[in-house]
Amino acid sequence: MVLKAVTGSLPCVGIVGLGLMGGSMGLDLRRQGYRVIGVSRQAATCDRAIARGAVDEAGCELERLAAADVVVLCLPIDRVGAIATQVIPHLRPTAILTDVASVKGAIVAEITPQWPRFVGGHPMAGTHESGIEAAQFDLFQGRPYVITPTATTDRAAIATVAALATALGSVVYECAPTAHDRAVAWISHLPVFVSASLIAACTGETDPQILALAQHLASSGFRDTSRVGGGNPELGTMMARYNREELLRSLSTYRDTLNDLINQINTEDWAGIAETLTETHAARSPFVDDPPHPHE
Amino acid sequence: MVLKAVTGSLPCVGIVGLGLMGGSMGLDLRRQGYRVIGVSRQAATCDRAIARGAVDEAGCELERLAAADVVVLCLPIDRVGAIATQVIPHLRPTAILTDVASVKGAIVAEITPQWPRFVGGHPMAGTHESGIEAAQFDLFQGRPYVITPTATTDRAAIATVAALATALGSVVYECAPTAHDRAVAWISHLPVFVSASLIAACTGETDPQILALAQHLASSGFRDTSRVGGGNPELGTMMARYNREELLRSLSTYRDTLNDLINQINTEDWAGIAETLTETHAARSPFVDDPPHPHE
Repeated sequence: MVLKAVTGSLPCVGIVGLGLMGGSMGLDLRRQGYRVIGVSRQAATCDRAIARGAVDEAGCELERLAAADVVVLCLPIDRVGAIATQVIPHLRPTAILTDVASVKGAIVAEITPQWPRFVGGHPMAGTHESGIEAAQFDLFQGRPYVITPTATTDRAAIATVAALATALGSVVYECAPTAHDRAVAWISHLPVFVSASLIAACTGETDPQILALAQHLASSGFRDTSRVGGGNPELGTMMARYNREELLRSLSTYRDTLNDLINQINTEDWAGIAETLTETHAARSPFVDDPPHPHE
Repeated sequence: MVLKAVTGSLPCVGIVGLGLMGGSMGLDLRRQGYRVIGVSRQAATCDRAIARGAVDEAGCELERLAAADVVVLCLPIDRVGAIATQVIPHLRPTAILTDVASVKGAIVAEITPQWPRFVGGHPMAGTHESGIEAAQFDLFQGRPYVITPTATTDRAAIATVAALATALGSVVYECAPTAHDRAVAWISHLPVFVSASLIAACTGETDPQILALAQHLASSGFRDTSRVGGGNPELGTMMARYNREELLRSLSTYRDTLNDLINQINTEDWAGIAETLTETHAARSPFVDDPPHPHE
Protein backbone atom coordinates (compact mmCIF):
# COMPACT_ATOMS: atom_id res chain seq x y z
CA MET A 1 0.00 0.00 0.00
CA VAL A 2 2.70 2.47 0.91
CA LEU A 3 4.78 1.50 -2.11
CA LYS A 4 1.68 1.86 -4.26
CA ALA A 5 1.04 5.34 -2.93
CA VAL A 6 4.65 6.46 -3.61
CA THR A 7 4.57 4.97 -7.08
CA GLY A 8 1.35 6.71 -7.82
CA SER A 9 2.89 10.09 -7.05
CA LEU A 10 5.58 9.69 -9.68
CA PRO A 11 4.79 11.08 -13.13
CA CYS A 12 4.13 8.69 -16.00
CA VAL A 13 7.01 9.09 -18.48
CA GLY A 14 6.71 8.67 -22.25
CA ILE A 15 9.94 7.96 -24.11
CA VAL A 16 10.04 8.50 -27.87
CA GLY A 17 12.99 6.70 -29.40
CA LEU A 18 14.13 3.48 -27.74
CA GLY A 19 17.85 3.46 -28.48
CA LEU A 20 20.79 3.64 -26.09
CA MET A 21 19.57 6.86 -24.45
CA GLY A 22 15.83 6.15 -24.33
CA GLY A 23 16.30 2.51 -23.36
CA SER A 24 18.79 3.31 -20.58
CA MET A 25 16.53 6.05 -19.22
CA GLY A 26 13.60 3.62 -19.17
CA LEU A 27 15.60 0.97 -17.29
CA ASP A 28 16.58 3.41 -14.53
CA LEU A 29 13.17 5.07 -14.22
CA ARG A 30 11.24 1.81 -14.07
CA ARG A 31 13.59 0.51 -11.37
CA GLN A 32 12.54 3.52 -9.30
CA GLY A 33 8.85 2.92 -9.77
CA TYR A 34 8.07 5.27 -12.65
CA ARG A 35 5.60 4.01 -15.22
CA VAL A 36 7.27 4.21 -18.65
CA ILE A 37 5.51 4.21 -22.03
CA GLY A 38 7.76 3.66 -25.04
CA VAL A 39 7.26 4.70 -28.65
CA SER A 40 9.48 3.67 -31.54
CA ARG A 41 9.08 3.59 -35.31
CA GLN A 42 10.00 -0.09 -35.29
CA ALA A 43 7.73 -2.69 -33.73
CA ALA A 44 10.72 -5.02 -33.20
CA THR A 45 12.44 -2.32 -31.12
CA CYS A 46 9.29 -1.94 -29.01
CA ASP A 47 9.25 -5.69 -28.39
CA ARG A 48 12.91 -5.70 -27.34
CA ALA A 49 12.38 -2.71 -25.04
CA ILE A 50 9.53 -4.55 -23.30
CA ALA A 51 11.56 -7.78 -23.10
CA ARG A 52 14.54 -5.93 -21.61
CA GLY A 53 12.36 -4.21 -19.02
CA ALA A 54 13.07 -0.71 -20.32
CA VAL A 55 9.35 0.13 -20.68
CA ASP A 56 6.03 -0.96 -19.19
CA GLU A 57 4.42 -0.83 -22.61
CA ALA A 58 5.50 0.23 -26.06
CA GLY A 59 4.25 0.59 -29.60
CA CYS A 60 4.60 2.58 -32.80
CA GLU A 61 1.47 4.73 -32.15
CA LEU A 62 1.99 8.27 -30.83
CA GLU A 63 -1.51 8.04 -29.30
CA ARG A 64 0.03 6.10 -26.41
CA LEU A 65 1.67 9.35 -25.24
CA ALA A 66 -1.71 10.80 -24.19
CA ALA A 67 -1.24 8.96 -20.87
CA ALA A 68 2.15 10.54 -20.14
CA ASP A 69 2.84 13.41 -17.72
CA VAL A 70 6.33 13.92 -19.17
CA VAL A 71 7.50 12.98 -22.67
CA VAL A 72 11.22 12.65 -23.42
CA LEU A 73 12.29 12.78 -27.05
CA CYS A 74 15.37 10.51 -27.22
CA LEU A 75 16.16 11.14 -30.86
CA PRO A 76 19.08 12.26 -33.02
CA ILE A 77 19.55 16.04 -33.34
CA ASP A 78 18.13 16.18 -36.85
CA ARG A 79 14.91 14.35 -35.97
CA VAL A 80 13.87 16.05 -32.72
CA GLY A 81 12.09 19.03 -34.28
CA ALA A 82 10.03 17.07 -36.81
CA ILE A 83 9.00 14.38 -34.33
CA ALA A 84 8.09 17.02 -31.71
CA THR A 85 5.63 18.50 -34.19
CA GLN A 86 4.06 15.07 -34.67
CA VAL A 87 4.00 14.29 -30.94
CA ILE A 88 2.49 17.58 -29.70
CA PRO A 89 -1.11 16.97 -30.97
CA HIS A 90 -1.21 13.82 -28.83
CA LEU A 91 -0.07 15.40 -25.55
CA ARG A 92 -2.41 16.12 -22.66
CA PRO A 93 -2.55 19.91 -22.02
CA THR A 94 -0.48 19.70 -18.82
CA ALA A 95 2.23 17.43 -20.29
CA ILE A 96 5.85 18.48 -20.11
CA LEU A 97 8.01 17.85 -23.17
CA THR A 98 11.79 17.52 -23.11
CA ASP A 99 14.60 16.09 -25.27
CA VAL A 100 18.17 14.82 -24.96
CA ALA A 101 19.88 16.31 -28.03
CA SER A 102 23.46 17.63 -27.74
CA VAL A 103 22.66 21.03 -29.25
CA LYS A 104 19.97 23.21 -27.75
CA GLY A 105 19.59 26.66 -29.32
CA ALA A 106 18.01 25.61 -32.63
CA ILE A 107 15.85 22.92 -31.02
CA VAL A 108 14.53 25.13 -28.19
CA ALA A 109 13.75 27.89 -30.70
CA GLU A 110 11.85 25.47 -32.94
CA ILE A 111 9.78 23.62 -30.32
CA THR A 112 9.02 26.23 -27.63
CA PRO A 113 6.54 28.23 -29.80
CA GLN A 114 4.64 24.99 -30.46
CA TRP A 115 4.62 23.80 -26.85
CA PRO A 116 5.39 26.31 -24.07
CA ARG A 117 5.92 23.47 -21.60
CA PHE A 118 8.98 22.29 -23.54
CA VAL A 119 12.25 22.23 -21.57
CA GLY A 120 15.42 21.42 -23.50
CA GLY A 121 17.76 18.88 -21.92
CA HIS A 122 21.15 17.34 -22.61
CA PRO A 123 22.34 14.38 -20.55
CA MET A 124 26.07 14.13 -21.28
CA ALA A 125 26.37 10.36 -21.25
CA GLY A 126 26.84 7.62 -23.79
CA THR A 127 28.88 4.65 -24.90
CA HIS A 128 30.41 3.71 -28.23
CA GLU A 129 27.38 1.56 -28.93
CA SER A 130 23.82 2.44 -29.87
CA GLY A 131 20.41 0.82 -30.05
CA ILE A 132 18.11 -0.85 -27.52
CA GLU A 133 20.51 -3.78 -27.01
CA ALA A 134 23.17 -1.31 -25.76
CA ALA A 135 20.80 0.18 -23.16
CA GLN A 136 22.13 -0.19 -19.61
CA PHE A 137 21.37 0.76 -16.03
CA ASP A 138 23.20 3.76 -14.52
CA LEU A 139 24.29 5.24 -17.87
CA PHE A 140 23.57 8.74 -16.51
CA GLN A 141 24.91 8.15 -12.99
CA GLY A 142 27.30 10.95 -11.99
CA ARG A 143 27.19 12.51 -15.46
CA PRO A 144 26.22 16.15 -16.15
CA TYR A 145 22.62 16.71 -17.27
CA VAL A 146 22.14 20.21 -18.65
CA ILE A 147 18.65 21.73 -18.63
CA THR A 148 18.20 24.76 -20.90
CA PRO A 149 14.99 26.68 -20.18
CA THR A 150 14.30 30.09 -21.65
CA ALA A 151 13.46 33.18 -19.60
CA THR A 152 9.76 32.38 -19.90
CA THR A 153 9.81 28.63 -19.23
CA ASP A 154 7.41 27.52 -16.46
CA ARG A 155 9.42 26.84 -13.27
CA ALA A 156 7.29 23.78 -12.43
CA ALA A 157 8.15 22.23 -15.79
CA ILE A 158 11.86 22.89 -15.15
CA ALA A 159 11.57 21.28 -11.71
CA THR A 160 9.93 18.17 -13.16
CA VAL A 161 12.70 17.64 -15.72
CA ALA A 162 15.35 18.34 -13.06
CA ALA A 163 13.72 15.70 -10.83
CA LEU A 164 13.88 13.15 -13.65
CA ALA A 165 17.58 13.94 -14.18
CA THR A 166 18.21 13.63 -10.45
CA ALA A 167 16.38 10.29 -10.41
CA LEU A 168 18.86 9.11 -13.06
CA GLY A 169 21.72 10.01 -10.72
CA SER A 170 22.91 12.87 -12.91
CA VAL A 171 24.47 16.15 -11.78
CA VAL A 172 22.00 18.79 -12.94
CA TYR A 173 23.09 22.08 -14.53
CA GLU A 174 20.76 24.83 -15.69
CA CYS A 175 21.70 27.49 -18.25
CA ALA A 176 20.37 29.31 -21.30
CA PRO A 177 20.39 27.35 -24.60
CA THR A 178 23.00 29.69 -26.08
CA ALA A 179 25.30 29.28 -23.07
CA HIS A 180 25.02 25.50 -23.41
CA ASP A 181 25.84 25.59 -27.11
CA ARG A 182 28.84 27.86 -26.59
CA ALA A 183 30.23 25.73 -23.75
CA VAL A 184 29.83 22.41 -25.59
CA ALA A 185 31.31 23.94 -28.73
CA TRP A 186 34.57 24.36 -26.78
CA ILE A 187 34.78 21.02 -25.03
CA SER A 188 32.81 18.68 -27.26
CA HIS A 189 32.40 19.94 -30.84
CA LEU A 190 35.71 21.81 -31.34
CA PRO A 191 37.75 18.73 -30.26
CA VAL A 192 36.04 16.64 -32.98
CA PHE A 193 37.21 18.97 -35.73
CA VAL A 194 40.65 19.58 -34.21
CA SER A 195 41.09 15.82 -33.99
CA ALA A 196 39.68 15.09 -37.47
CA SER A 197 42.09 17.63 -38.96
CA LEU A 198 44.97 15.76 -37.33
CA ILE A 199 43.98 12.50 -39.01
CA ALA A 200 43.39 14.23 -42.35
CA ALA A 201 46.77 16.00 -42.13
CA CYS A 202 48.70 12.81 -41.34
CA THR A 203 47.12 10.94 -44.24
CA GLY A 204 48.27 13.83 -46.44
CA GLU A 205 51.87 12.59 -46.15
CA THR A 206 52.81 11.89 -49.78
CA ASP A 207 55.75 9.54 -49.19
CA PRO A 208 54.19 6.07 -48.74
CA GLN A 209 57.19 4.80 -46.74
CA ILE A 210 56.95 7.70 -44.26
CA LEU A 211 53.18 7.20 -43.98
CA ALA A 212 53.63 3.47 -43.27
CA LEU A 213 56.34 4.20 -40.70
CA ALA A 214 54.13 6.81 -39.00
CA GLN A 215 51.27 4.29 -38.87
CA HIS A 216 53.54 1.70 -37.26
CA LEU A 217 55.02 4.12 -34.72
CA ALA A 218 51.77 5.80 -33.67
CA SER A 219 50.98 5.08 -30.05
CA SER A 220 48.96 6.52 -27.15
CA GLY A 221 49.58 10.19 -28.01
CA PHE A 222 48.19 9.85 -31.50
CA ARG A 223 45.54 7.39 -30.35
CA ASP A 224 44.08 9.79 -27.79
CA THR A 225 44.39 12.97 -29.86
CA SER A 226 42.75 11.34 -32.90
CA ARG A 227 39.96 9.45 -31.10
CA VAL A 228 37.02 11.82 -31.44
CA GLY A 229 38.08 12.87 -34.95
CA GLY A 230 37.75 9.24 -36.02
CA GLY A 231 34.31 8.85 -34.47
CA ASN A 232 30.79 8.73 -35.91
CA PRO A 233 30.72 10.88 -39.12
CA GLU A 234 26.95 11.50 -38.94
CA LEU A 235 27.17 12.80 -35.36
CA GLY A 236 30.10 15.09 -36.21
CA THR A 237 28.24 16.48 -39.21
CA MET A 238 25.16 17.18 -37.07
CA MET A 239 27.28 18.97 -34.46
CA ALA A 240 28.58 21.26 -37.19
CA ARG A 241 25.19 21.72 -38.78
CA TYR A 242 23.17 22.44 -35.64
CA ASN A 243 25.84 24.35 -33.71
CA ARG A 244 27.45 26.01 -36.70
CA GLU A 245 27.80 29.54 -35.34
CA GLU A 246 29.39 28.59 -32.01
CA LEU A 247 31.60 25.95 -33.61
CA LEU A 248 32.88 28.48 -36.16
CA ARG A 249 33.56 30.92 -33.33
CA SER A 250 35.60 28.35 -31.40
CA LEU A 251 37.41 27.19 -34.55
CA SER A 252 38.38 30.78 -35.32
CA THR A 253 39.91 31.22 -31.86
CA TYR A 254 41.59 27.83 -32.22
CA ARG A 255 43.13 28.83 -35.54
CA ASP A 256 44.49 32.00 -33.94
CA THR A 257 46.14 30.08 -31.10
CA LEU A 258 47.57 27.56 -33.58
CA ASN A 259 49.02 30.39 -35.67
CA ASP A 260 50.59 31.93 -32.56
CA LEU A 261 52.31 28.61 -31.78
CA ILE A 262 53.46 28.17 -35.39
CA ASN A 263 54.91 31.68 -35.35
CA GLN A 264 56.75 30.96 -32.10
CA ILE A 265 58.30 27.82 -33.60
CA ASN A 266 59.08 29.64 -36.85
CA THR A 267 60.90 32.44 -35.02
CA GLU A 268 62.59 29.95 -32.66
CA ASP A 269 60.98 31.63 -29.66
CA TRP A 270 61.69 28.68 -27.37
CA ALA A 271 61.04 30.67 -24.21
CA GLY A 272 57.65 31.61 -25.63
CA ILE A 273 56.86 27.98 -26.54
CA ALA A 274 57.86 26.85 -23.05
CA GLU A 275 55.64 29.53 -21.53
CA THR A 276 52.67 28.54 -23.69
CA LEU A 277 53.09 24.83 -22.88
CA THR A 278 53.47 25.63 -19.18
CA GLU A 279 50.17 27.52 -19.38
CA THR A 280 48.36 24.72 -21.21
CA HIS A 281 49.76 22.20 -18.72
CA ALA A 282 48.24 24.20 -15.85
CA ALA A 283 45.04 25.15 -17.71
CA ARG A 284 44.00 21.56 -18.45
CA SER A 285 43.36 20.58 -14.84
CA PRO A 286 40.17 22.60 -14.25
CA PHE A 287 38.64 20.84 -17.27
CA VAL A 288 39.59 17.29 -16.36
CA ASP A 289 40.35 17.04 -12.64
CA ASP A 290 37.35 18.46 -10.82
CA PRO A 291 34.43 16.19 -10.12
CA PRO A 292 31.26 17.67 -11.60
CA HIS A 293 29.11 19.69 -9.27
CA PRO A 294 26.05 21.88 -9.82
CA HIS A 295 26.64 25.12 -11.65
CA GLU A 296 23.96 27.79 -11.71
CA MET B 1 79.61 -23.49 -16.68
CA VAL B 2 77.23 -23.31 -19.66
CA LEU B 3 75.39 -20.32 -18.17
CA LYS B 4 78.73 -18.68 -17.47
CA ALA B 5 79.83 -19.23 -21.08
CA VAL B 6 76.62 -17.70 -22.45
CA THR B 7 76.85 -14.76 -20.08
CA GLY B 8 80.43 -14.20 -21.08
CA SER B 9 79.43 -13.84 -24.73
CA LEU B 10 77.06 -10.93 -24.08
CA PRO B 11 78.49 -7.43 -24.46
CA CYS B 12 79.12 -5.32 -21.39
CA VAL B 13 76.66 -2.39 -21.52
CA GLY B 14 77.34 1.08 -20.14
CA ILE B 15 74.29 3.23 -19.41
CA VAL B 16 74.76 6.98 -19.02
CA GLY B 17 71.74 8.49 -17.29
CA LEU B 18 69.91 6.35 -14.75
CA GLY B 19 66.35 7.64 -15.01
CA LEU B 20 63.20 5.87 -16.18
CA MET B 21 64.72 4.83 -19.52
CA GLY B 22 68.25 3.96 -18.38
CA GLY B 23 67.10 2.27 -15.20
CA SER B 24 64.44 0.18 -16.97
CA MET B 25 66.93 -0.85 -19.64
CA GLY B 26 69.40 -1.93 -16.95
CA LEU B 27 66.79 -4.02 -15.14
CA ASP B 28 65.88 -5.96 -18.30
CA LEU B 29 69.46 -6.43 -19.53
CA ARG B 30 70.80 -7.63 -16.19
CA ARG B 31 67.94 -10.12 -15.91
CA GLN B 32 69.19 -11.59 -19.18
CA GLY B 33 72.78 -11.86 -18.01
CA TYR B 34 74.27 -8.68 -19.44
CA ARG B 35 76.81 -6.90 -17.27
CA VAL B 36 75.62 -3.29 -16.83
CA ILE B 37 77.76 -0.33 -15.76
CA GLY B 38 75.83 2.80 -14.79
CA VAL B 39 76.94 6.43 -14.82
CA SER B 40 74.94 9.32 -13.39
CA ARG B 41 75.75 12.87 -12.33
CA GLN B 42 74.28 12.13 -8.93
CA ALA B 43 75.89 9.68 -6.52
CA ALA B 44 72.53 9.13 -4.80
CA THR B 45 71.02 8.00 -8.13
CA CYS B 46 73.90 5.56 -8.61
CA ASP B 47 73.25 4.10 -5.16
CA ARG B 48 69.54 3.68 -5.88
CA ALA B 49 70.27 2.08 -9.26
CA ILE B 50 72.55 -0.47 -7.55
CA ALA B 51 70.01 -1.07 -4.78
CA ARG B 52 67.21 -1.60 -7.30
CA GLY B 53 69.31 -4.05 -9.31
CA ALA B 54 69.36 -1.90 -12.45
CA VAL B 55 73.18 -1.95 -12.67
CA ASP B 56 76.06 -4.16 -11.56
CA GLU B 57 78.09 -1.11 -10.63
CA ALA B 58 77.60 2.64 -10.93
CA GLY B 59 79.35 5.91 -10.23
CA CYS B 60 79.72 9.50 -11.41
CA GLU B 61 83.03 8.87 -13.25
CA LEU B 62 82.94 8.50 -17.04
CA GLU B 63 86.17 6.42 -16.76
CA ARG B 64 83.97 3.46 -15.80
CA LEU B 65 82.74 3.32 -19.41
CA ALA B 66 86.17 2.09 -20.64
CA ALA B 67 84.99 -1.43 -19.76
CA ALA B 68 81.84 -1.22 -21.89
CA ASP B 69 81.34 -2.79 -25.33
CA VAL B 70 78.18 -0.72 -25.91
CA VAL B 71 77.31 2.60 -24.29
CA VAL B 72 73.71 3.83 -24.26
CA LEU B 73 73.14 7.54 -23.62
CA CYS B 74 69.78 7.65 -21.79
CA LEU B 75 69.56 11.43 -21.58
CA PRO B 76 67.15 14.22 -22.52
CA ILE B 77 67.35 15.46 -26.11
CA ASP B 78 69.18 18.64 -25.20
CA ARG B 79 71.95 16.87 -23.25
CA VAL B 80 72.83 13.95 -25.55
CA GLY B 81 75.24 15.85 -27.79
CA ALA B 82 77.26 17.52 -25.03
CA ILE B 83 77.53 14.35 -22.91
CA ALA B 84 78.50 12.29 -25.98
CA THR B 85 81.48 14.64 -26.47
CA GLN B 86 82.50 14.07 -22.85
CA VAL B 87 81.98 10.29 -23.03
CA ILE B 88 83.84 9.61 -26.30
CA PRO B 89 87.42 10.11 -24.94
CA HIS B 90 86.74 7.33 -22.44
CA LEU B 91 85.46 4.71 -24.92
CA ARG B 92 87.52 1.75 -26.04
CA PRO B 93 88.21 1.96 -29.82
CA THR B 94 85.75 -0.81 -30.67
CA ALA B 95 82.92 0.50 -28.48
CA ILE B 96 79.51 1.15 -30.00
CA LEU B 97 77.67 4.28 -28.90
CA THR B 98 73.91 4.74 -29.08
CA ASP B 99 71.19 6.94 -27.53
CA VAL B 100 67.45 6.91 -26.85
CA ALA B 101 66.39 10.48 -27.74
CA SER B 102 63.09 11.08 -29.53
CA VAL B 103 64.61 13.18 -32.33
CA LYS B 104 67.39 11.80 -34.43
CA GLY B 105 68.53 14.03 -37.32
CA ALA B 106 70.31 16.70 -35.29
CA ILE B 107 71.79 14.21 -32.83
CA VAL B 108 73.11 11.79 -35.48
CA ALA B 109 74.63 14.70 -37.40
CA GLU B 110 76.35 16.00 -34.28
CA ILE B 111 77.77 12.74 -32.88
CA THR B 112 78.61 10.64 -35.97
CA PRO B 113 81.62 12.78 -37.02
CA GLN B 114 83.03 12.37 -33.49
CA TRP B 115 82.41 8.61 -33.27
CA PRO B 116 81.72 6.67 -36.47
CA ARG B 117 80.46 3.72 -34.42
CA PHE B 118 77.49 5.80 -33.20
CA VAL B 119 74.04 4.41 -34.04
CA GLY B 120 71.03 6.59 -33.21
CA GLY B 121 68.14 4.88 -31.45
CA HIS B 122 64.64 5.71 -30.23
CA PRO B 123 62.77 3.24 -28.06
CA MET B 124 59.16 4.47 -28.12
CA ALA B 125 58.24 3.64 -24.55
CA GLY B 126 57.65 5.54 -21.34
CA THR B 127 55.31 6.24 -18.48
CA HIS B 128 54.06 9.46 -16.93
CA GLU B 129 56.76 9.16 -14.30
CA SER B 130 60.50 9.71 -14.45
CA GLY B 131 63.62 8.96 -12.43
CA ILE B 132 65.27 5.78 -11.16
CA GLU B 133 62.38 5.01 -8.79
CA ALA B 134 60.03 4.79 -11.80
CA ALA B 135 62.28 2.26 -13.58
CA GLN B 136 60.49 -1.02 -14.28
CA PHE B 137 60.93 -4.37 -15.98
CA ASP B 138 59.46 -4.83 -19.47
CA LEU B 139 59.04 -1.11 -20.20
CA PHE B 140 60.15 -1.73 -23.80
CA GLN B 141 58.30 -5.02 -24.28
CA GLY B 142 56.30 -4.99 -27.52
CA ARG B 143 57.09 -1.30 -28.16
CA PRO B 144 58.71 0.04 -31.34
CA TYR B 145 62.47 0.66 -31.13
CA VAL B 146 63.68 2.71 -34.11
CA ILE B 147 67.34 2.49 -35.12
CA THR B 148 68.54 5.28 -37.40
CA PRO B 149 71.89 4.54 -39.02
CA THR B 150 73.33 6.61 -41.84
CA ALA B 151 74.40 5.22 -45.22
CA THR B 152 77.93 4.74 -43.89
CA THR B 153 77.19 3.25 -40.46
CA ASP B 154 79.00 -0.06 -39.78
CA ARG B 155 76.52 -2.96 -40.18
CA ALA B 156 78.01 -4.80 -37.19
CA ALA B 157 77.33 -1.79 -34.97
CA ILE B 158 73.74 -1.66 -36.22
CA ALA B 159 73.34 -5.39 -35.51
CA THR B 160 74.63 -4.96 -31.95
CA VAL B 161 72.13 -2.19 -31.15
CA ALA B 162 69.32 -4.17 -32.83
CA ALA B 163 70.23 -7.17 -30.66
CA LEU B 164 69.99 -5.01 -27.52
CA ALA B 165 66.57 -3.74 -28.60
CA THR B 166 65.44 -7.29 -29.33
CA ALA B 167 66.70 -8.38 -25.91
CA LEU B 168 64.42 -5.70 -24.41
CA GLY B 169 61.46 -7.29 -26.23
CA SER B 170 61.03 -4.34 -28.59
CA VAL B 171 59.89 -4.45 -32.20
CA VAL B 172 62.88 -3.11 -34.14
CA TYR B 173 62.53 -0.67 -37.04
CA GLU B 174 65.41 0.71 -39.09
CA CYS B 175 65.23 3.92 -41.11
CA ALA B 176 67.19 7.05 -41.95
CA PRO B 177 67.27 9.78 -39.24
CA THR B 178 65.28 12.14 -41.48
CA ALA B 179 62.59 9.51 -42.11
CA HIS B 180 62.29 8.95 -38.36
CA ASP B 181 61.95 12.64 -37.64
CA ARG B 182 59.33 13.14 -40.34
CA ALA B 183 57.28 10.14 -39.16
CA VAL B 184 57.36 11.10 -35.47
CA ALA B 185 56.53 14.69 -36.35
CA TRP B 186 53.17 13.43 -37.66
CA ILE B 187 52.22 11.04 -34.90
CA SER B 188 54.04 12.34 -31.84
CA HIS B 189 55.10 15.99 -32.13
CA LEU B 190 52.21 17.43 -34.20
CA PRO B 191 49.59 16.01 -31.77
CA VAL B 192 51.26 17.86 -28.90
CA PHE B 193 50.83 21.24 -30.58
CA VAL B 194 47.37 20.45 -31.98
CA SER B 195 46.31 19.47 -28.47
CA ALA B 196 48.02 22.41 -26.72
CA SER B 197 46.26 24.80 -29.10
CA LEU B 198 42.93 23.26 -28.07
CA ILE B 199 43.58 23.98 -24.39
CA ALA B 200 44.86 27.48 -25.16
CA ALA B 201 41.81 28.22 -27.33
CA CYS B 202 39.31 27.04 -24.71
CA THR B 203 40.92 29.14 -21.99
CA GLY B 204 40.55 32.11 -24.36
CA GLU B 205 36.78 32.12 -23.66
CA THR B 206 36.23 35.57 -22.20
CA ASP B 207 32.88 34.97 -20.46
CA PRO B 208 33.79 33.49 -17.05
CA GLN B 209 30.41 31.75 -16.71
CA ILE B 210 30.78 30.01 -20.07
CA LEU B 211 34.36 29.03 -19.19
CA ALA B 212 33.24 27.56 -15.85
CA LEU B 213 30.39 25.69 -17.53
CA ALA B 214 32.76 24.31 -20.18
CA GLN B 215 35.13 23.14 -17.44
CA HIS B 216 32.29 21.37 -15.63
CA LEU B 217 30.90 19.72 -18.77
CA ALA B 218 34.24 18.57 -20.25
CA SER B 219 34.44 14.79 -20.37
CA SER B 220 36.27 12.02 -22.22
CA GLY B 221 36.35 13.77 -25.61
CA PHE B 222 38.10 16.84 -24.23
CA ARG B 223 40.17 14.74 -21.84
CA ASP B 224 41.66 12.60 -24.60
CA THR B 225 42.12 15.36 -27.17
CA SER B 226 43.84 17.65 -24.64
CA ARG B 227 46.04 15.06 -22.92
CA VAL B 228 49.34 15.45 -24.76
CA GLY B 229 48.93 19.23 -25.02
CA GLY B 230 48.79 19.39 -21.23
CA GLY B 231 51.91 17.27 -20.81
CA ASN B 232 55.51 18.05 -19.90
CA PRO B 233 56.32 21.60 -21.16
CA GLU B 234 60.09 20.99 -21.31
CA LEU B 235 59.64 17.88 -23.48
CA GLY B 236 57.26 19.69 -25.83
CA THR B 237 59.67 22.58 -26.21
CA MET B 238 62.52 20.20 -27.01
CA MET B 239 60.40 18.43 -29.65
CA ALA B 240 59.84 21.79 -31.34
CA ARG B 241 63.44 22.88 -30.97
CA TYR B 242 65.14 19.70 -32.18
CA ASN B 243 62.60 18.70 -34.84
CA ARG B 244 61.63 22.21 -35.89
CA GLU B 245 61.68 21.77 -39.65
CA GLU B 246 59.58 18.59 -39.76
CA LEU B 247 57.20 19.89 -37.12
CA LEU B 248 56.65 23.11 -39.09
CA ARG B 249 56.03 21.05 -42.22
CA SER B 250 53.38 18.94 -40.46
CA LEU B 251 51.82 22.00 -38.80
CA SER B 252 51.54 23.70 -42.18
CA THR B 253 49.68 20.71 -43.65
CA TYR B 254 47.53 20.56 -40.52
CA ARG B 255 46.59 24.23 -40.85
CA ASP B 256 45.57 23.62 -44.47
CA THR B 257 43.30 20.71 -43.52
CA LEU B 258 41.80 22.75 -40.68
CA ASN B 259 41.10 25.63 -43.05
CA ASP B 260 39.41 23.25 -45.49
CA LEU B 261 37.10 22.04 -42.72
CA ILE B 262 36.36 25.58 -41.54
CA ASN B 263 35.49 26.56 -45.11
CA GLN B 264 33.17 23.58 -45.45
CA ILE B 265 31.34 24.55 -42.25
CA ASN B 266 31.28 28.20 -43.29
CA THR B 267 29.69 27.39 -46.65
CA GLU B 268 27.34 24.82 -45.06
CA ASP B 269 28.80 22.07 -47.22
CA TRP B 270 27.36 19.32 -45.04
CA ALA B 271 27.91 16.62 -47.64
CA GLY B 272 31.57 17.67 -47.78
CA ILE B 273 31.87 17.58 -43.99
CA ALA B 274 30.27 14.14 -43.86
CA GLU B 275 32.68 12.92 -46.55
CA THR B 276 35.71 14.31 -44.68
CA LEU B 277 34.61 12.74 -41.38
CA THR B 278 33.90 9.43 -43.11
CA GLU B 279 37.45 9.53 -44.48
CA THR B 280 39.01 10.37 -41.10
CA HIS B 281 36.92 7.63 -39.48
CA ALA B 282 38.39 5.09 -41.92
CA ALA B 283 41.90 6.58 -41.98
CA ARG B 284 42.45 6.32 -38.22
CA SER B 285 42.47 2.51 -38.09
CA PRO B 286 45.85 1.91 -39.78
CA PHE B 287 47.44 4.16 -37.14
CA VAL B 288 45.84 2.64 -34.08
CA ASP B 289 44.58 -0.87 -34.85
CA ASP B 290 47.53 -2.77 -36.27
CA PRO B 291 49.94 -4.42 -33.87
CA PRO B 292 53.46 -3.15 -34.50
CA HIS B 293 55.59 -5.27 -36.78
CA PRO B 294 59.01 -4.74 -38.36
CA HIS B 295 59.17 -2.15 -41.12
CA GLU B 296 62.22 -2.00 -43.34
